[in-house]
Parts: sequence; structure tokens; C-alpha cells
Amino acid sequence: MNYPSQLIENAVNEISKLPGIGKKTALRLTLHLLKREEQQTRSLSEALVAMRTQSQFCRRCHNISDGELCNICKSPKREASLLCVVVDTRDVLAIENTSQFNGTYHVLGGIISPLEGIGPADLHIDSLLARIVDEEIREVILALSPTMEGDTTAFYLQKKLKPLGVKISTIARGIPIGGDLEYADEVTLGRSIVSRVAYD
Amino acid sequence: MNYPSQLIENAVNEISKLPGIGKKTALRLTLHLLKREEQQTRSLSEALVAMRTQSQFCRRCHNISDGELCNICKSPKREASLLCVVVDTRDVLAIENTSQFNGTYHVLGGIISPLEGIGPADLHIDSLLARIVDEEIREVILALSPTMEGDTTAFYLQKKLKPLGVKISTIARGIPIGGDLEYADEVTLGRSIVSRVAYD
Repeated sequence: MNYPSQLIENAVNEISKLPGIGKKTALRLTLHLLKREEQQTRSLSEALVAMRTQSQFCRRCHNISDGELCNICKSPKREASLLCVVVDTRDVLAIENTSQFNGTYHVLGGIISPLEGIGPADLHIDSLLARIVDEEIREVILALSPTMEGDTTAFYLQKKLKPLGVKISTIARGIPIGGDLEYADEVTLGRSIVSRVAYD
Repeated sequence: MNYPSQLIENAVNEISKLPGIGKKTALRLTLHLLKREEQQTRSLSEALVAMRTQSQFCRRCHNISDGELCNICKSPKREASLLCVVVDTRDVLAIENTSQFNGTYHVLGGIISPLEGIGPADLHIDSLLARIVDEEIREVILALSPTMEGDTTAFYLQKKLKPLGVKISTIARGIPIGGDLEYADEVTLGRSIVSRVAYD
């Protein structure tokens, strides 16, 4: 496409490097910013640079944090001996939004994926094992997606965690609430029968 | 949502001010930038500010431009007496991509919309009328969308242009190429019959 100016072309190229945003959407966003106050573009730009350059990670759980320790690790109200292992910050947010978990987290920072060249050494696994011992963790919940990579990572972690004598669990797989039995895939439905829960 | 840090929250809030981007997408984009090189965020941020602060508009046709006159107005290959009136830069790009038009443009910068409080005085209509006289334009093509606002604007422009004795035309409305008669709406199909084109 012939952009009307080099400035527009540069902006479109930079925006379209973001995931899920193509050249057309990037152009729409660029022209939108051009119509708005200059201040809006400046605020956006400053917020992005500040976020990227000043963000810290909690030294205990590796979650994004305002300080050396994140708010969850700092909180005296959280059960420190119950540890939930997740892939990234988005998973922490998703679980926090349920208000069903009162323990602390450990953010792996990725998932084992031989195809993408990500092995156990690239993840925060050593610090996880150290925490189990140092912090007297009584239970580790593996909250990983039920995908090939998630299962591989869970399998690897189980092997590493077992010798430490800590209780290991995983989040339940089954029919989603509001889901329809008829439309559930066979693997999920099969798993939901095997992992059935007895009424009290 | 409880964001893990103030920096993330600020970035999410700024990104989600863009049209069509909600908080969830904004968070995904923020975390993506956080994983990438710092340089990517800096380039994005600089391209946006440069685009917003240094962009110029062609003094003849009001299109976005690198200099005082845009590339289309400057080109000696374009037919200067054939003028295509469009709403904004995106329309110029769309028409340029067809390679079917060799005249010049006039960008209105908006469309008459009483609901949004946009009247004729907010658009580049005075400079259009001045160009018709000064530049000895022989034909004005109104390339406006066939919507309520587009039709209103076209009607207003026709009233203003008629006294100047210039030929006025509008882009053809009809069945899109590859479109199916069966699924065309009645108004479009009706218009395509009324505006039928004789075989040579």
C-alpha cells in the first residue's frame, strides 16, 4: 500500500508488529490518533515506555510487581504454604478474578515447548524447587492449560517435585459451567466421568 | 480487574482508549511488549509521537502529506482537472489501490452529521469551491459512502457545486463484483436496475 506519508507508514509498521493487529487495523488506529488531541498520543507513548522500562518482577514469585515483592507475596492474609504454579501474569489475574484462591503463586514465565526451543532451563523451575524447601510449602497446585505443552510441563514438574515430599495437585478438567454435554468433546467428557466427584 | 502493577494498569488504560481495543486485548498487548526487547516499545512509542506531532496536511487537497503539497497533488502525471471528493485519507488509499483513477483528490475531513454535531462549516468545503474556480476543474466525482450522512453530504455539495457550472458525478452504486443477486438487498438491486449500463 502507498501510505500518504513516511510518518504514517512508520507508525503503521510499528503498530502492526503487535500480535493480532494487521496493517489495516494499524492504519485505522494511526488515523484515529491523528484526529485526537496530541496529548492522547503522548500519554499512550509514555505509558508504554514507562511500563517497559520500569516494570519489576517479584523476586519470590516472578509475577510483575511494583516493588521487590508483589502485593500477593507481601500480603499477610494469603496462605503462604499453598502454592499455585502458573505460566504467566495473565493466569494469575484470571485466578485472582475468581476470588476462590487464597494461596500464593509461582510464575514459570513460559511453558516447555521443544518446537519453540523452550526447555526447563528457560523457566523459573529452580527457584520453584528452592521455594518448596525454604518456605515449607505443603501443597503445589499445577494450574497449566490442558494442552500438549501444558501436560509436558506438568509431567516434568511432577517428576521434580515428588522427591521433595510435597503434595501435588492439578486444577480439575471437566465440563465447563454452563457448557452443554452434547457439545463437549469426547476427551473432556471422558475425563469428567473418570474424575467424577462424589456428593457429600 | 486488579492489575499486578500500576505501570501495567496505566499502559492497559491508555491502549484501551483506542477504538476496538478492550481491556483484555490491551493487557495481552502490554504483556507482549513486556516480553519483547525494550527497543520495540521505544520504536513504537517514537513512531506514534513523530506521526502525531510532525504530520502535515497538503494545503491543496488536505490529505496527509510529508510536505506542503502531497505526492498526488505534486505529480505532473495526474489529471488536475478531475477532482475526486472523499471523506478521509483511508478513502484516498482505497481508491489509489484500485489503480483506476488518475485525477486528484479533495479530502473533506469528515461528513455532515447533525447527530454528531458536524456541519458543513466543519468540513473543507470552502476550499473545494475555491479550487473549482481557481484550478479550472472540469469534473467533480463525489466518492461518498451510500449512507444517510454520505447522501446528505452529497446533496449539500451538489447544491453548492451546481452554480459553478462544473460537471458533477458520483461513484456507481450496484451489485458488488462477485456478489450474489440472491443476497443483494432490495435497495441496491433496485438501484442497479435503474442505473443499468448499456453494452457498447
